[in-house]
Amino acid sequence: MLKATIVVRLKEGVDDPEGKSIKHSLNLLGFESVRDVRTAKEYVVVLDSPREEGMKVVVEMVRKLFVNPVIHDYEVRVEEI
Amino acid sequence: MLKATIVVRLKEGVDDPEGKSIKHSLNLLGFESVRDVRTAKEYVVVLDSPREEGMKVVVEMVRKLFVNPVIHDYEVRVEEI
Repeated sequence: MLKATIVVRLKEGVDDPEGKSIKHSLNLLGFESVRDVRTAKEYVVVLDSPREEGMKVVVEMVRKLFVNPVIHDYEVRVEEI
Repeated sequence: MLKATIVVRLKEGVDDPEGKSIKHSLNLLGFESVRDVRTAKEYVVVLDSPREEGMKVVVEMVRKLFVNPVIHDYEVRVEEI
């Protein structure tokens, strides 16, 4: 079995209203040293594939379902479990 | 300046409907080897604090704003930038 950890982040320069709103809340809560907040999504996918083809399959699914290449960057780690 | 990366995950046993829905979609798209999908949220916070008190401040903000301890686990990394 393989465990793939996929992190999908907004590209630099793409607006992140959720991050802005969190920064604002943190400042209001007294955390005035906070300068910026960016949000991202992590997906952990467990799949029953051989190690060799694991990365290929995961990158294919990331491109098909997880990522919009216009606004997202992504990072993938695959490990055996 | 410090960069804190905070990952907030649902605890084991807590239902993850978004993950379930993604698993279903992946299976329908032909990725039949996918057994499970869990989702999590990553926050990158940039703050203007000295290194020594960085971790303390970040853990405090995580507890106040980012996490519901009943359903979430979290992980924090702090680095200088």
